[in-house]
Amino acid sequence: MSSTPEIKQVETHQFGPYKIRTSEVFLSTPLSLAMVNLKPVVPGHVLIIPRRVALRFQDLSHEEVADIWTLAQRVGSVIEPHFGAVSLTFAIQDGAAAGQTVPHVHIHCLPRKMGDFENNDEVYDKIDEHAEQMKERLDLDKERVVRTPDEMAAEAAELRVLFT
Amino acid sequence: MSSTPEIKQVETHQFGPYKIRTSEVFLSTPLSLAMVNLKPVVPGHVLIIPRRVALRFQDLSHEEVADIWTLAQRVGSVIEPHFGAVSLTFAIQDGAAAGQTVPHVHIHCLPRKMGDFENNDEVYDKIDEHAEQMKERLDLDKERVVRTPDEMAAEAAELRVLFT
Repeated sequence: MSSTPEIKQVETHQFGPYKIRTSEVFLSTPLSLAMVNLKPVVPGHVLIIPRRVALRFQDLSHEEVADIWTLAQRVGSVIEPHFGAVSLTFAIQDGAAAGQTVPHVHIHCLPRKMGDFENNDEVYDKIDEHAEQMKERLDLDKERVVRTPDEMAAEAAELRVLFT
Repeated sequence: MSSTPEIKQVETHQFGPYKIRTSEVFLSTPLSLAMVNLKPVVPGHVLIIPRRVALRFQDLSHEEVADIWTLAQRVGSVIEPHFGAVSLTFAIQDGAAAGQTVPHVHIHCLPRKMGDFENNDEVYDKIDEHAEQMKERLDLDKERVVRTPDEMAAEAAELRVLFT
């Protein structure tokens, strides 16, 4: 219908309004994706999201709920020892009043070590700082200033082999 | 085998080392329970747990993972409007280094309102304070000083009717 020339693009996934490169995804199912982070709060801080753009947790089907959390469980059990951690924080900021800034359901999964934060809950402040930085992706000049695509792809590759 | 006289007890569920009265449970499935809190951080702050005592999230079967999160989703979608909230915080502190104090997987589900905490993440500090208070249950003299069983049963009854 359109005469606009087709532009060859890098394969991407949608994360709310953002494009996530396939190179940043380290594990996936037909319904969900596990991906590295623009700026991890702790080593191994990753996100698990439904493939379908869905704003709120209640927007997910039962199949999506089971799938995303089964994937998060698997990811957590592998990245925890890989990053020398002994615990995990799982959190969904489900809606703006809970601190959600990217309008797409996402589970934060963070490997935790004893004393990694002076106050345990500083980890959540850091998650919010990260969310603010995600907004900068919409500003093309600022896109990817925090970590380069290559850095993120390298970490995703490192994690991918853990699941093969 | 024992000659100890049988003592009639209130029906309870196990939450790690603690006994939870059935009167404090407002929704359940064959695998999971949703219950009110000893000291909610915000109105409607509830916990969703597997019936089976399991320390870590990775100890849950796929069936338990799907069940507990489907229950959490249903609980969240009902308590959010009931408490006049517009968002939800879901969190699992999975292991001691992540702030877990009760050795039994539990999902915190908190109805959130805009500006309910000056700093959004103070909510997590409050969760930890609550966890400290749970420890006092083991001290019989201090048991239930925060909320009475009647207060908790009344809130559970209020919530139970929302799901009928």
